[in-house]
Amino acid sequence: MFSDIEIAQANQMEPITAIAEKCGILPEELEQYGHYKAKVSLDVLKRLKDKPDGKLVLVTAITPTPAGEGKSTTSIGLTQALNKIGKKAIVALREPSLGPVFGIKGGAAGGGYAQVVPMDDINLHFTGDMHAITAANNLLSAMIDNHVHQGNDLNIDVRQITWKRVLDMNDRALRNVVVGMGGKVCGFPREDHFMITVASEIMAALCLATSIEDLKERFGRIVIGCNYAGEPVYVHQLGCEGAMAMLMKDAIKPNIVQTLEHTPALVHGGPFANIAHGCNSILATKMALKLGDIVITEAGFGADLGAEKFLDIKCPYGDIFPQAVIIVATIRALKMHGGVKKTDLGEENVEAVNAGFVNLAKQVENMRAYGLPVLVAINKFSSDTPAEIEKLLQKCDSYGVDVTLNECWEKGGDGGIDMAKQVAAMVEGTNIKPVTMYDKEDSIPEKLTKIVQKIYGGTGVEFTANAKKQIKQLEDWGLDKLPVCIAKTQYSLSDDPALLGAPKDFTINVQDVRVANGAGFIVCQTSNIMVMPGLPKKPAALNMDIDADGKISGLF
Amino acid sequence: MFSDIEIAQANQMEPITAIAEKCGILPEELEQYGHYKAKVSLDVLKRLKDKPDGKLVLVTAITPTPAGEGKSTTSIGLTQALNKIGKKAIVALREPSLGPVFGIKGGAAGGGYAQVVPMDDINLHFTGDMHAITAANNLLSAMIDNHVHQGNDLNIDVRQITWKRVLDMNDRALRNVVVGMGGKVCGFPREDHFMITVASEIMAALCLATSIEDLKERFGRIVIGCNYAGEPVYVHQLGCEGAMAMLMKDAIKPNIVQTLEHTPALVHGGPFANIAHGCNSILATKMALKLGDIVITEAGFGADLGAEKFLDIKCPYGDIFPQAVIIVATIRALKMHGGVKKTDLGEENVEAVNAGFVNLAKQVENMRAYGLPVLVAINKFSSDTPAEIEKLLQKCDSYGVDVTLNECWEKGGDGGIDMAKQVAAMVEGTNIKPVTMYDKEDSIPEKLTKIVQKIYGGTGVEFTANAKKQIKQLEDWGLDKLPVCIAKTQYSLSDDPALLGAPKDFTINVQDVRVANGAGFIVCQTSNIMVMPGLPKKPAALNMDIDADGKISGLF
Repeated sequence: MFSDIEIAQANQMEPITAIAEKCGILPEELEQYGHYKAKVSLDVLKRLKDKPDGKLVLVTAITPTPAGEGKSTTSIGLTQALNKIGKKAIVALREPSLGPVFGIKGGAAGGGYAQVVPMDDINLHFTGDMHAITAANNLLSAMIDNHVHQGNDLNIDVRQITWKRVLDMNDRALRNVVVGMGGKVCGFPREDHFMITVASEIMAALCLATSIEDLKERFGRIVIGCNYAGEPVYVHQLGCEGAMAMLMKDAIKPNIVQTLEHTPALVHGGPFANIAHGCNSILATKMALKLGDIVITEAGFGADLGAEKFLDIKCPYGDIFPQAVIIVATIRALKMHGGVKKTDLGEENVEAVNAGFVNLAKQVENMRAYGLPVLVAINKFSSDTPAEIEKLLQKCDSYGVDVTLNECWEKGGDGGIDMAKQVAAMVEGTNIKPVTMYDKEDSIPEKLTKIVQKIYGGTGVEFTANAKKQIKQLEDWGLDKLPVCIAKTQYSLSDDPALLGAPKDFTINVQDVRVANGAGFIVCQTSNIMVMPGLPKKPAALNMDIDADGKISGLF
Repeated sequence: MFSDIEIAQANQMEPITAIAEKCGILPEELEQYGHYKAKVSLDVLKRLKDKPDGKLVLVTAITPTPAGEGKSTTSIGLTQALNKIGKKAIVALREPSLGPVFGIKGGAAGGGYAQVVPMDDINLHFTGDMHAITAANNLLSAMIDNHVHQGNDLNIDVRQITWKRVLDMNDRALRNVVVGMGGKVCGFPREDHFMITVASEIMAALCLATSIEDLKERFGRIVIGCNYAGEPVYVHQLGCEGAMAMLMKDAIKPNIVQTLEHTPALVHGGPFANIAHGCNSILATKMALKLGDIVITEAGFGADLGAEKFLDIKCPYGDIFPQAVIIVATIRALKMHGGVKKTDLGEENVEAVNAGFVNLAKQVENMRAYGLPVLVAINKFSSDTPAEIEKLLQKCDSYGVDVTLNECWEKGGDGGIDMAKQVAAMVEGTNIKPVTMYDKEDSIPEKLTKIVQKIYGGTGVEFTANAKKQIKQLEDWGLDKLPVCIAKTQYSLSDDPALLGAPKDFTINVQDVRVANGAGFIVCQTSNIMVMPGLPKKPAALNMDIDADGKISGLF
């Protein structure tokens, strides 16, 4: 058994120029970053603006458990398989964050024989997008503190600055800091917080922007806090949206790499899937739709979180809509939803599969609520028994949902031929129209209630006194008519991570409501979401090395 | 009159593949970053290891004044001119820092018709080297705080951690911070400081490393502070030098760009010229020496600071030595050394040129102390009068030093033909052997005294009680047998910025002595050196913009 990095390093990649040529990118539209990575000019969108879009397929999942699902692996494997059966398919994925690499996390570039490569570069600095976001974010922070230091014409209340600094590092010591110490020449002391870069509103704005102009306007609209009169302070009042957009001039261009089977992959943008919307960039998705006949993309966590945000936030902003949905499930995860402990997953338990199916059924129902055809893709593990698989197939059949077993992790595209054939058939000649779960003009409580009732399966929403005050403020500011981005645990359809399966009769509790006005949504937090991870007792960094030839080891 | 960015944007660059081919880099040794920037594989050094080196020419300057000198412009213009007269010349420069771009600073890629391009990219993210350094530096910080948080097996004294975090941003609010607030899950509160990235020891180590293995070993040797027993704590005890080196796998490769006249330029590494040694990387310099017949490189600030460190620190580590030195001077700067105020520089003042010549003479003498032939290059300004120029030529003649007028800023290579001819003649058939001003085995006070007496023109060194204690500690630790890197004002040969010209009978006062054991030198500070700049009242960021076509404006 080889590790992911061993499989990736053994793969003989094709030059990125060849990959780009395969999907019709012109040489002058390609900006190489080494031999195997490149950025693609947005000119592609202009050149192909009259070409009909390909079909978009969304990969989502059941509610995740510690047993693992494999959305990225399925997305990449499916794309490889579609190409094997003669379809021009492109996968459009998020790019991973650097910080978690040094902690305990595995890579975010697929796994086994369904990976995008060069996985080491993709997981490290890649083409510098994260660093550009860090710079744009922290330029704004420096401009805010400098504004206050130089006389504070805007009367910014340093106690109410909501804009935070970021670093792409797992660093708990930066979660809560005091900045501006050292006396008069060092500015005014105040409390600040560092988040990990992927949690930055800059990242969300990048992923939802449709052009560099749109991105600059989004930056200008960002609310950084309040003045002493309680009014919002916007970035355009500070005047640095142009400089921030300038820093993003290359980061806005989608990145192209390849799968292990040398099919094109666009990997661009990686917002948090809990406090942000968790999907790759609109620009990369739209570009893939111009370059491919079928485009596979994924949304973070379970269908209630990632897919809901994909469909209610990303699709309206991007003027796109999927024509089919894949819901990834594993026998192991269904067993956990059926009540089995992680340590007991090795034992056959057909009844638990039967009981855990309620979660899968609910997520299928959620996607059908958007009018979308669903295929359940079972990511096969060697520990799955024939009886467990048989039970799941039976349940899917009786529930009336198509299902496929995929072995892409082990076999690459060859492990997903049936899945590919089903997907190709599903998107043939479709024309499914966009649907959202709420109207942008609904009040914030109305929007939340609709999501809870239609998607989560709960009865309604409760607000803390603080959240009510925040909603009132956004209404006063006229900033409440935006989509909502619910930050909640990914481990349950409810906001209680202990409630597996398909809980009913619950309410969710909203504690904090903030506008991400540049991103273009309202973040509603149901609990304290960690926006700056820490390193564990034995960080993965301890195993990493590079030899005299520049070869890396210990990265996954 | 066009601005630097207008001249740069109007220039029709050649593809970087063509530039690389010109100097014999093989296609497989080139890693493109877009169409006009690339990294060059270190394999070049292996392939050409038996080829004799070209001749190295160091560009330095008189003691800088606010009137400006133009070392980079002269270096680039000279290279352009050498190519015009048929020499295979390559310029090897430092790369600029991003943070100061948003403040008041001009670009660091030359000026007028002597620039390296694409200057906008070079001044922004370039190929990501600074971001890699930021990540490696801050990974170490996270590992330190995590080690303390997870039980502190090494007994690190949080009051004595000398390793600081960095960001490539001018941000005064980060100079002095308290990290680790927020209770038990966020680590132990302690005082910390952010420096600008170019001030990081990671940067100095990168610039002095001769291979990725050497870099990794340097990282392992870094002293991050003390334990409670007062013993040094090294990075190799924390075990993350491999991960740090992994983050530098691409940053260690020299970057190739072009001059406005399409000659190759290696732009790599940019350590501070006051707290660090202020020269581009050894690897880029050595690579240029393999690829070119004449290599032009520069060292920061005046010859007493940058050139001294170049010759006493970089050359011994790199096993290189220049064969000629250019000292850049301007009539305006000489007039300031002769007592003229900045506001009065517009008026002719031949006597001030005469009086200010003492500074130039002293810097010439300093370079001759290393056995080096010197050419004075006068960077011509339109305000210089014939009488002032005549006086300077006369002084140089009577002092017995060659001199040339250059107009490269205005005319590109054509403005430096005489300079190029003189330089080509100077390096013909030379074989000057390395000289240093002190012996590595000298004590720290001995080394400092030798530099002060031989180079600065002073009488000796005084130490604060604190500095004496620090020297004793380094001696106890056995870490004192390294070159010294004196951090002092760049505005005087002494440590008092008010003393222009060529002061005598002064001592310098050393306040702080610290080992940069990974870089491989001992930093001796004579005053508080600012390692994190701030933004001014009207930051340059306010003028920056990007249009719908991605074209940048307001960058210089």
